[in-house]
Amino acid sequence: MSPDPFAARARELDAADELAPFRSRFVVGDDGPIYLDGNSLGRLPLAAAERARAVVEREWGERLIRGWNEGWWSLPERVGAKIARLIGAEPDEVIVADSTSVNLFKLALAALRARPERPVLLSDDLNFPSDLYVLASAAQSAAGDCRLELIRSPVGRTLPEAGLAEALEQRRDAVGLVALSHTAFKSAFVHDLAAVTTLAHNAGAWMLWDLSHSVGAMPLELRAAGVELAVGCGYKYLCGGPGAPAFLYVRRELQETLGNPIAGWIGGAAPFAFETEYAPAPGLRRFLTGTPPVLSLALIEPGVDLLLEAGLDRVRAKSVRQTEFLIELWEALLAPLGFELRSPREAARRGSHVALGHPEGWRINRALVERLNVIPDFRAPDNLRLGVCPLYTTYGELYASVRALHQVAEERLYEALPLQPVGVT
Amino acid sequence: MSPDPFAARARELDAADELAPFRSRFVVGDDGPIYLDGNSLGRLPLAAAERARAVVEREWGERLIRGWNEGWWSLPERVGAKIARLIGAEPDEVIVADSTSVNLFKLALAALRARPERPVLLSDDLNFPSDLYVLASAAQSAAGDCRLELIRSPVGRTLPEAGLAEALEQRRDAVGLVALSHTAFKSAFVHDLAAVTTLAHNAGAWMLWDLSHSVGAMPLELRAAGVELAVGCGYKYLCGGPGAPAFLYVRRELQETLGNPIAGWIGGAAPFAFETEYAPAPGLRRFLTGTPPVLSLALIEPGVDLLLEAGLDRVRAKSVRQTEFLIELWEALLAPLGFELRSPREAARRGSHVALGHPEGWRINRALVERLNVIPDFRAPDNLRLGVCPLYTTYGELYASVRALHQVAEERLYEALPLQPVGVT
Repeated sequence: MSPDPFAARARELDAADELAPFRSRFVVGDDGPIYLDGNSLGRLPLAAAERARAVVEREWGERLIRGWNEGWWSLPERVGAKIARLIGAEPDEVIVADSTSVNLFKLALAALRARPERPVLLSDDLNFPSDLYVLASAAQSAAGDCRLELIRSPVGRTLPEAGLAEALEQRRDAVGLVALSHTAFKSAFVHDLAAVTTLAHNAGAWMLWDLSHSVGAMPLELRAAGVELAVGCGYKYLCGGPGAPAFLYVRRELQETLGNPIAGWIGGAAPFAFETEYAPAPGLRRFLTGTPPVLSLALIEPGVDLLLEAGLDRVRAKSVRQTEFLIELWEALLAPLGFELRSPREAARRGSHVALGHPEGWRINRALVERLNVIPDFRAPDNLRLGVCPLYTTYGELYASVRALHQVAEERLYEALPLQPVGVT
Repeated sequence: MSPDPFAARARELDAADELAPFRSRFVVGDDGPIYLDGNSLGRLPLAAAERARAVVEREWGERLIRGWNEGWWSLPERVGAKIARLIGAEPDEVIVADSTSVNLFKLALAALRARPERPVLLSDDLNFPSDLYVLASAAQSAAGDCRLELIRSPVGRTLPEAGLAEALEQRRDAVGLVALSHTAFKSAFVHDLAAVTTLAHNAGAWMLWDLSHSVGAMPLELRAAGVELAVGCGYKYLCGGPGAPAFLYVRRELQETLGNPIAGWIGGAAPFAFETEYAPAPGLRRFLTGTPPVLSLALIEPGVDLLLEAGLDRVRAKSVRQTEFLIELWEALLAPLGFELRSPREAARRGSHVALGHPEGWRINRALVERLNVIPDFRAPDNLRLGVCPLYTTYGELYASVRALHQVAEERLYEALPLQPVGVT
């Protein structure tokens, strides 16, 4: 079929896109790649490049140790308070610290210890695998017979609330904590945050959400849903830079109840008193442990500022339109070539990427990157992920990427590449 | 007495200093402060400022996700292998990860779990207080009746080996791990690394050193001493930048025995296989947990390179000469004004700073910073610390700093400042 009508559609959609001007706020080279992997690592905001120079050359270079009193000390709370606005939390309910994994460990362990009479930590197999490793680690560190139990999803793509309700019913009164990824990293399936939280609460469990693949891509309402705990990533849709520190959320009502299982230096009540006995800082600051990596931490703020300026409702609306467009393109151009849609068709249940399965997914991904200057990503065993970031992704890029996928598959360009090495994913 | 002979001495010492050219490799403004707080936050190497631009603008901005395959992924090991040369370890025995606190938690807990029949974790009150908090956290997370027990040092400044030997003897067969700070943060007292490690071994215990106030200031020989475990800080003498990630050392023979108590994403055997069951990576990489903050991590390397270029023997020799000079100046100019020497006089037992006690220490420190453009630091309740970093500290700066201290104390300049607020240290 002729692709031209889609090209015209892409041009129209870009012309009508009220978020289009935000693209110029990011570093986008003229001959750079089409980048559909912002769900792994967001692009560099121009303001972050400026901020990096200021933090390194002026704050570190010239102000030296004084930088701590001139902004660094309060950075975890200041950036946290901005992230709070992205997830429907109060400013004092979010703080930036450590990595997602370390934060998940701290919060899960704190929750398990708070209610030893409910030793089951419940999750599902749509969760990011290393979240499961961390949750198992937390269960091991908790006293008693704490254990992680896993709900298996049908074919690993979606999990209806009924499945969760049943799992909770089977473990009545034993589940202390339900810990899930809000948006599944492979399929982009989105749990219904309010409904699932209510299910957990009805079973007497607390709720811990990993928001890594949601935050910055859609509005979230943690406080309204009564969510107890959450963690999330700084380097995907927040555009905080490679390995940017993560954030954690603790509902205000629980902050004085829970303790940090890794009691550390800057989470203490009086870090400069140098007492041999630990006393936790009031509020959320107690969940800090060691000194934060200031440079990486400071660079989260510019991306968050851009999202706040754009408004998450507009971001989400464009994200939905873009993934709908991708699915339309898939149906017309890629389905006939053996690509399978692995993401939900219902927009409300889909995050900001579209997963496509293809038996040659690994080599197709490589052909796109190496031959056609298009960067999607690949997730074992055979998933291509096409991520849209409404602040900088254009409809034209989506169309060009699907054309590239079409070309690679139809002309079997991937056959010129070596086979996927055994054991390497 | 006249200060002039000391001024001449300082000039002579600077003229004869073979490390003097290294000062030009750091950002040192013409009218910047005299900086004696490199033991808290090292100065900015020029090469680190360049590297920051490259990582942010080229690697993140242009290469985007490809940065992971073009160097980021192996940064923890690459920088770790260089730090290994500073501490007498093999290249595959050191890796950069997390913060000092989180690393201490991981290693202490791993060690305690490995030998539950030895439940006592022994430390001393010279240790950095938050190390004690973290060690207590690790003991809480270990199974059984693990507990932290503390040796009290005489007046909190030094701890003779006899005190340690006695503490070990009293707890015969119960101590699984001895965890100490090699150089004490307040007094700069230095434990005899080899002798203390041997004492621990003779009692059947493993040894875990926190090298934060030693690494980069003196040669260390971990492997030769048979040390099992160590952690250390990236932002003091390594000049890695504010909150730079920390490092950890695990003796090669133990690497396959010990598990990471926070099993995470990049420490797994096959991070991209996305299996729900965790399998640890071979070797030291298993002690990584979450994605590292690449920007902050990358900036550790330039400072380490400078130390390797200078050679730690020369660094230590100058450090000793500089702290000796400081003590000589203290004796002549400051002791008569009520300053007390709180650091060991024996050079072999003293790290790279000199602690001076004064009842007005808090206000004297503020007067130096605010009125005389000299930055020492202050540690509660009444300690001034004067830190020397041989790569950039000059003898002239030391003399000028002592003159400033002399002036502030003799002219009671501090009396113009507000009193130390109650409860604020």
